[in-house]
Amino acid sequence: MSQTMKSSVLYGVHDVRTEERPVPQPGPGEVLIQVRAVGTCGSDVHYYEHGRIGDFVVEQPLVLGHEPSGVIVAKGRDADRHEIGQRVALEPGVPCSTCAQCKAGRYNLCPRMRFFGTPPIDGAFAEYVVLREDFAHPIPDALSDEAAGLLEPLSVGVWACTKGRVRTGSRVLITGAGPIGLVATQTARAFGATEVVVTDVNPRRLEVAKELGASATVDVSQHDIDFEPDVLLECSGVPAAAKQAMRKVGRAGRIVLVGMGGDEIPLPLAHIQNFEIEVTGTFRYANTWPTAIELAADATVDLDRLVTHRFSLDEVERALTIAATDDSVIKAVVLPSHG
Amino acid sequence: MSQTMKSSVLYGVHDVRTEERPVPQPGPGEVLIQVRAVGTCGSDVHYYEHGRIGDFVVEQPLVLGHEPSGVIVAKGRDADRHEIGQRVALEPGVPCSTCAQCKAGRYNLCPRMRFFGTPPIDGAFAEYVVLREDFAHPIPDALSDEAAGLLEPLSVGVWACTKGRVRTGSRVLITGAGPIGLVATQTARAFGATEVVVTDVNPRRLEVAKELGASATVDVSQHDIDFEPDVLLECSGVPAAAKQAMRKVGRAGRIVLVGMGGDEIPLPLAHIQNFEIEVTGTFRYANTWPTAIELAADATVDLDRLVTHRFSLDEVERALTIAATDDSVIKAVVLPSHG
Amino acid sequence: MSQTMKSSVLYGVHDVRTEERPVPQPGPGEVLIQVRAVGTCGSDVHYYEHGRIGDFVVEQPLVLGHEPSGVIVAKGRDADRHEIGQRVALEPGVPCSTCAQCKAGRYNLCPRMRFFGTPPIDGAFAEYVVLREDFAHPIPDALSDEAAGLLEPLSVGVWACTKGRVRTGSRVLITGAGPIGLVATQTARAFGATEVVVTDVNPRRLEVAKELGASATVDVSQHDIDFEPDVLLECSGVPAAAKQAMRKVGRAGRIVLVGMGGDEIPLPLAHIQNFEIEVTGTFRYANTWPTAIELAADATVDLDRLVTHRFSLDEVERALTIAATDDSVIKAVVLPSHG
Amino acid sequence: MSQTMKSSVLYGVHDVRTEERPVPQPGPGEVLIQVRAVGTCGSDVHYYEHGRIGDFVVEQPLVLGHEPSGVIVAKGRDADRHEIGQRVALEPGVPCSTCAQCKAGRYNLCPRMRFFGTPPIDGAFAEYVVLREDFAHPIPDALSDEAAGLLEPLSVGVWACTKGRVRTGSRVLITGAGPIGLVATQTARAFGATEVVVTDVNPRRLEVAKELGASATVDVSQHDIDFEPDVLLECSGVPAAAKQAMRKVGRAGRIVLVGMGGDEIPLPLAHIQNFEIEVTGTFRYANTWPTAIELAADATVDLDRLVTHRFSLDEVERALTIAATDDSVIKAVVLPSHG
Repeated sequence: MSQTMKSSVLYGVHDVRTEERPVPQPGPGEVLIQVRAVGTCGSDVHYYEHGRIGDFVVEQPLVLGHEPSGVIVAKGRDADRHEIGQRVALEPGVPCSTCAQCKAGRYNLCPRMRFFGTPPIDGAFAEYVVLREDFAHPIPDALSDEAAGLLEPLSVGVWACTKGRVRTGSRVLITGAGPIGLVATQTARAFGATEVVVTDVNPRRLEVAKELGASATVDVSQHDIDFEPDVLLECSGVPAAAKQAMRKVGRAGRIVLVGMGGDEIPLPLAHIQNFEIEVTGTFRYANTWPTAIELAADATVDLDRLVTHRFSLDEVERALTIAATDDSVIKAVVLPSHG
Repeated sequence: MSQTMKSSVLYGVHDVRTEERPVPQPGPGEVLIQVRAVGTCGSDVHYYEHGRIGDFVVEQPLVLGHEPSGVIVAKGRDADRHEIGQRVALEPGVPCSTCAQCKAGRYNLCPRMRFFGTPPIDGAFAEYVVLREDFAHPIPDALSDEAAGLLEPLSVGVWACTKGRVRTGSRVLITGAGPIGLVATQTARAFGATEVVVTDVNPRRLEVAKELGASATVDVSQHDIDFEPDVLLECSGVPAAAKQAMRKVGRAGRIVLVGMGGDEIPLPLAHIQNFEIEVTGTFRYANTWPTAIELAADATVDLDRLVTHRFSLDEVERALTIAATDDSVIKAVVLPSHG
Repeated sequence: MSQTMKSSVLYGVHDVRTEERPVPQPGPGEVLIQVRAVGTCGSDVHYYEHGRIGDFVVEQPLVLGHEPSGVIVAKGRDADRHEIGQRVALEPGVPCSTCAQCKAGRYNLCPRMRFFGTPPIDGAFAEYVVLREDFAHPIPDALSDEAAGLLEPLSVGVWACTKGRVRTGSRVLITGAGPIGLVATQTARAFGATEVVVTDVNPRRLEVAKELGASATVDVSQHDIDFEPDVLLECSGVPAAAKQAMRKVGRAGRIVLVGMGGDEIPLPLAHIQNFEIEVTGTFRYANTWPTAIELAADATVDLDRLVTHRFSLDEVERALTIAATDDSVIKAVVLPSHG
Repeated sequence: MSQTMKSSVLYGVHDVRTEERPVPQPGPGEVLIQVRAVGTCGSDVHYYEHGRIGDFVVEQPLVLGHEPSGVIVAKGRDADRHEIGQRVALEPGVPCSTCAQCKAGRYNLCPRMRFFGTPPIDGAFAEYVVLREDFAHPIPDALSDEAAGLLEPLSVGVWACTKGRVRTGSRVLITGAGPIGLVATQTARAFGATEVVVTDVNPRRLEVAKELGASATVDVSQHDIDFEPDVLLECSGVPAAAKQAMRKVGRAGRIVLVGMGGDEIPLPLAHIQNFEIEVTGTFRYANTWPTAIELAADATVDLDRLVTHRFSLDEVERALTIAATDDSVIKAVVLPSHG
């Protein structure tokens, strides 16, 4: 194995460079993974365009990419969970495992979380990465490398449905038919939702939502929503869409704010009180990979359908650019080992 | 027993009249109750001053009062739960018991709820009322008539703590030291909260909060809140107070919006998402009287301490006026049988 | 409409007579239903053979049958939920709606429950029955009369999966492939279970389990169970089967004792403690019809597949006999309007 | 600091020897703690008398003791949570923190748990021990060394009440007034239980239960239990007591099997089913120290009251002997730093 590897590094706004870096060494309990596929995410695009997300500022060169899959090629001391050659999906955030949040099973809220592609932690747009072995999840042959990377956004959907307590018979409204809305649509179905209504202003995306399981779609630029859900999964990140949808939720319903977007939104107070609606937000996910793998492996959820564009490691900048500008992109995937 | 009784009737804004009305007859499964004490509530005052609360409009003469206690004096057909002479606290809203909300145990969300003193249903500022027998809760001798009436606001506190999942070791922030904030303070303690911090801008009320169990108080007109609660019970109804307090809540915390107030408030989205905080509102209560009775009967909660003023049935208007204008009022109680 | 109707009445052990009875009159809030189909259940057979189940003793002539569907033909005073002609599935137990259990949403535990075909309450082996309107659930055209009756056993499965918290990704073990085990198999799948292993000693029933969604089956007369479930649904009622299966359940798992059977079973204490397993039993169901209807209407669950034999009202005794003796019976259905 | 320390070591049944051992060295993230007080537990006595508990066999010399408190005297690399000199209570089991159980917040069910005084892991009957720093919980001055050690059995009570969902208004039955029953009694009160009935056959222990908060006690050698709890905490470990008590539990109640005892007990099946009672067992505890510290520090729970006998490290054998034979012992405490 070579001592160096190719990495795609963000140096600043609109400044991505491919460079040689040393291959990292797995520490105790860690594995070294050759990266096979990495999805690009809206947050990658945001760092590329703005150099920051909220308080997270790119102050030194940063490798982006947090939707990776790969194969284990080396193991550190005491790493005994996997064999060399095991194909894995990478859960891209490693918590401290010792704080109160971690010990309570909410490791996604760990204040010391080290998350791929979030300053100052490097991500997976590289040929190799190291990871704590228990965050490398073995995948079956049925899953493609690309689908295995997209277990990360699927986990966002699984977590949203978990927080919203979607279950058999649920009536679910999903605002926004972007990648998260589309995985949420499929996940809600997998969780037993009987009706899944998806809204957007982009007819093409609504077509895909329909294809992936929406029982109905609404182009909210044209029509009002005539549906009373018991769960709203807000995946649009658009305050006006959130506002309109929140008022539709029925008695004892739940609202899950999945899409990121701004510091404040108006909450329909009287509606929340009179109907005793629960509102919460999601921050990533915890313990979702096993379920996500099951759903994708038995084809309950189709992740390959989301991949519309593919790029090599040298083309990361193009991937980030096109994801932001081309309407036909659902998911652009970077393939570090193919180029 | 007389065929008629004295009632206090709201005819319109600032127009309350005492008049003779027929004593009501208990129907099947109902009991007739001689009213002993009735607390006045902010909503009574609001109807008196504005003739409406939101969509509920006083369009015909209305008897206010929904915090009553009394004694059973007659029973309708099939009413077999109580003996004549039983002292009871009245749960002042009777649901349909057959809709989906009722059957799921959420009868407070019943769309056909008939609630005392809410147009067009008459309340308890009268000598007698009828009530479905299972909403008349027997009380022990240890409870005074006045305290028994105030089980209604105590139920609001019990429900708020239940929704907020206050428990042993909880750190609770309560905004607003009015009657609801003061019962919530005591209830939070009874639910095991280790720290209960109460905020207000009225030093006298904060003194009472301290006396009733607050571990600390903050005059938010003078000081910032230096406390990270895991539960916020918003009892002020003041948007600015709610806004300030919501940003204090810690990871995986809960926010319960108890105080009524307006159609919308700003929700601190990023904070809610990053900390996965749950926000909900309460609408009255369900199944709270048994617990409220236990808490008041064994002196865990002191309701008598809240009663600062007393009035006869002829003085309801004065009670409503003083409650709105005199800073020293915590609870004004109407005593229909004493006058 | 005729004043009398045909009823099938159990007079004692092995003594069923068809007789004319007055058509019942719907009271306030009740509807009169012409019965279309009624499933026979193991408990019907048990009353027929033994004249009692535990403390419930047939002391006077009793109409059996508690898995009915039908059509509304008349309405009592204040019954305003349905139109004449509406096809409905009957939820066959009417609680008091006013006790603590009812008000908490656990109406199945109501001490005053009046349940079809349970002494001394008559059931549905008759041409007409009356029912509180909110327990008559409208069904869509997609559901056959027979399937609509079998929503009752499906409700048992829905309740079992609810109590066992079966969800996306669950690994479920079901002991017993009788009618309840078979609906539980389908329900577990509908609730998202990834693996559903079914055991029995009857290979033909295991075949049906396979056909209806079991991922694997085990003939426990031949093989041990090599599977660690996180949920066990005990549907066999056989203590030895229950005992063997309980020791298979993994850490933090749940055991739901669905099948009736005897006063005591041995609990594997050390296993329950070391793995902190939760054990519970189910008693009928609450609020399950809406979900059951959804599952059956969209063909997630196939109830028609369970019907193997059909009888007229005059043939109830034969239905009960064959259900007890003929191995090929899964569900025998009585069709009161056909003959 | 000396290089060696005094340890009390179990060599076999009835064979305890005091010997010099090297002072252990704290590894990364660990602290070295000078032990101040260690409670003796029934399991210590059991190992001393039988050399094993179930599958755990003493096959090499073993240090017992798992209820310790102490003071931090040294820190390993990266241990940054505490200062030297900090008084701490020791949570005596360290899980792997990386398995599915740990990541779900159920670290007590970790298959790789290393627990003090459980073969082959040494316990705290020694002058010094090392511990992962996050399992050393800082304690306030209000807590004595002895009380700090007894936070371990208190944690058992906190966990039992948590699993039993004891809350404001609960009616709790506790079988057995040994150390665990006595902490459970106090904990149930702290969790808001209105009635706490304690049973035993030892009048002296029932006296202590009364003193520590039981609302009633029952000597079950003399009287039947006339009480319908909604929660049963089985702390006796006596099958006959468990059996009698389980049949008392009311509708939708919970049974928590806390006391260890044997491989099987008979479960009252019909009662569990008809009342839909939940049964579970507890295995140690998870995330309980913060609550236990709060309860003990503000005197809600009195742990010092439980200490009846004190011994030096040289007297461990006597402590274990007397705990098994002397009826007046509630808790015997070993004080390694005092002589």
